[in-house]
Amino acid sequence: MAKITAVSPLAPAAFPALPVIEGVKFSTAVAGVKYQGRTDVMLATLIPGTVIAGAFTRSATRSASVLDCQAKLGLASDEAAAILVNSGNSNAFTGKGGVASVEAITAAVARVCDLPQTRVFTSSTGVIGEPLPHDRITAVLDALSQTGDANSIEAAAKAIMTTDTFPKGSKATIEIDGKTVSIAGIAKGSGMIAPDMATMLVYIFTDALICQDALQALVSQSNEQTFNAITVDSDTSTSDSLIVAATGASGVAVDGNSDFAEALHSVMLDLAHQVVRDGEGATKFVEIVVTGAGSDAEAKIHAMSIANSPLIKTAIAGEDPNWGRVVMAVGKSGAAADRDRLSIRFGEVEVAKNGFRSEGYSEEAATAHMKGQNIVIGVDIGIGSGTATVWTCDLTHGYISINADYRS
Amino acid sequence: MAKITAVSPLAPAAFPALPVIEGVKFSTAVAGVKYQGRTDVMLATLIPGTVIAGAFTRSATRSASVLDCQAKLGLASDEAAAILVNSGNSNAFTGKGGVASVEAITAAVARVCDLPQTRVFTSSTGVIGEPLPHDRITAVLDALSQTGDANSIEAAAKAIMTTDTFPKGSKATIEIDGKTVSIAGIAKGSGMIAPDMATMLVYIFTDALICQDALQALVSQSNEQTFNAITVDSDTSTSDSLIVAATGASGVAVDGNSDFAEALHSVMLDLAHQVVRDGEGATKFVEIVVTGAGSDAEAKIHAMSIANSPLIKTAIAGEDPNWGRVVMAVGKSGAAADRDRLSIRFGEVEVAKNGFRSEGYSEEAATAHMKGQNIVIGVDIGIGSGTATVWTCDLTHGYISINADYRS
Repeated sequence: MAKITAVSPLAPAAFPALPVIEGVKFSTAVAGVKYQGRTDVMLATLIPGTVIAGAFTRSATRSASVLDCQAKLGLASDEAAAILVNSGNSNAFTGKGGVASVEAITAAVARVCDLPQTRVFTSSTGVIGEPLPHDRITAVLDALSQTGDANSIEAAAKAIMTTDTFPKGSKATIEIDGKTVSIAGIAKGSGMIAPDMATMLVYIFTDALICQDALQALVSQSNEQTFNAITVDSDTSTSDSLIVAATGASGVAVDGNSDFAEALHSVMLDLAHQVVRDGEGATKFVEIVVTGAGSDAEAKIHAMSIANSPLIKTAIAGEDPNWGRVVMAVGKSGAAADRDRLSIRFGEVEVAKNGFRSEGYSEEAATAHMKGQNIVIGVDIGIGSGTATVWTCDLTHGYISINADYRS
Repeated sequence: MAKITAVSPLAPAAFPALPVIEGVKFSTAVAGVKYQGRTDVMLATLIPGTVIAGAFTRSATRSASVLDCQAKLGLASDEAAAILVNSGNSNAFTGKGGVASVEAITAAVARVCDLPQTRVFTSSTGVIGEPLPHDRITAVLDALSQTGDANSIEAAAKAIMTTDTFPKGSKATIEIDGKTVSIAGIAKGSGMIAPDMATMLVYIFTDALICQDALQALVSQSNEQTFNAITVDSDTSTSDSLIVAATGASGVAVDGNSDFAEALHSVMLDLAHQVVRDGEGATKFVEIVVTGAGSDAEAKIHAMSIANSPLIKTAIAGEDPNWGRVVMAVGKSGAAADRDRLSIRFGEVEVAKNGFRSEGYSEEAATAHMKGQNIVIGVDIGIGSGTATVWTCDLTHGYISINADYRS
């Protein structure tokens, strides 16, 4: 197995110091699901009254645990709740056995944590199509349920990693009526990242007080501009899950509060960016900004066509301002475009305007931008007012090395 | 510039001996459009009465020469005709200057070949967005028009190459009423190959006698199952062109003749396969066969989702029978699927059936298939009778090396 152990060059300097979220406890364990010698299970327990919202992969082959979470999400309950996640095996495409594994795990968590099974959410990430040895997970539940503490969120972030090269965390705190509301989130994901989410698991916790409908609306809305606006390789996981849990422990009601909405959005966006920054083999963080499209939806189609183009992603890896490939990607996207109204910039360097290379275009200046670590490609379609921004990374030899024998 | 000069390991042993097509002459020249020290322009002249059909990229940013060809295709004419192709510069996204270049080239060809400008078809392939120095092409037209001969089709195939590692040719001959009808075709293309064609130029010649409507119908129909059923990297060129010219010189009418239809299809399929076999960095030729989909169209969506998945293509490069990634690609495609009815095989090895790993699945046998050069991935969706077959290649370090600095 080609193991790439170096941390992504795009990683943040350190895991952030996350605020304690009152009402949440974390514990982790070494269950040996697949990986040896590292934590691979994490349990988060949540106090009674915690409100849970989420968003999941739209894959037609999504995993049993995703289906189970989706079924439970809408059930109102004032009971305590728990989230149990394992890494190493995704329990996807595992047939009836996979459903039985979810049943066994959620039943066992409910028992040891003394809460209804309908309040237990579980996720699995790792290899697809291998039976999940769920007894290894249930065997550590007693220990997990007795060791939870409010300060172990970083350990939880590490336990859910697969090919990730760094643990991902983000936070926000806001003041409302003189009281502090905190948000802390963790994520995993580095390959198979695409629109409609990723091999990506995200758990965000807040002590805000909010009703389920309002929280779900915020999550669904921000999801489109954060986790559904990133792509590493256009591939979509069967397991993508985002769960947001609001314990209410701050006592601060945030329904309709725009500061809270912005804070939650910023945490989601930061985690989404960190997932891209850990894109397999990534050496450049790339922002694609499309303006002037026929609609926002068409702008996103253009942006994703650019972000998913192997020819563009390899050109970025080669630090080549190859804007002809951007023209190609706009042309193939299927959304409306007019060759003679198209304008393109790399960073602040305008390379093409109204369908032709810009007068005074400096290849030197464009190349200088491409040599940086943060690349911006701006495209104005010139036919309307639709806009979209998406994020991706470059396509390098590292991606090939990691994925040519990940499973072997 | 990282130049990969080795011939693709998937290349045919040799360029085939193509039959002379009566009524067609080929000539080539060194015009120095971009490349130095090699032929980069080819002219094919066609006798009066030649019928011309074609298919072109559907890119919204297609080049001036494509638009010009499309406009001329439907014009009935008994006059002679010509096809002029240059490599090195695609004259795409070159604004009004690009239109002027097409006008200058087609006018000059019409003049030196003494035929109407509406009967001159031109294509350009190479870098996008650089002004085409068309005077270098028109400067060699006199020589081209005087050196044509019926035997130089291989030289023509070489003159239109860009990143191709081998020239591509194919042929078919059929007997109808005791007379021979011949078909000979050439193609170029290796990267930016995707549905809706490719950075691909294809020229097929036959001495069959056929009306334009009938020829166009055959070309359009076969195109869907040949050139529109291959993908190297999901990227679509702005210049893709397929032109089929029937000189009628055999005197054999083939309207409605199924042998001719099959022969033309076989030449188109062979050339399409050769384009995949020259996929940038390719080491494996991959056939994706989808059955049991809701419709043929949905089968093709699934097949292309599999064929374009970077995770699947890198797994193939790594000789890893990673069928979980096939499940992923079916799930993300957007076409209907039922996880619990899905079956997958690699070659003759059934790996998954009805949503779970097959009983008696042998990883060893599947791996043995993956070590071959010709890979077959069969997927039965299990919900209907729709079928589709598409072809692709693996994704390797070679692709990254070629594309990270093709233009620099």
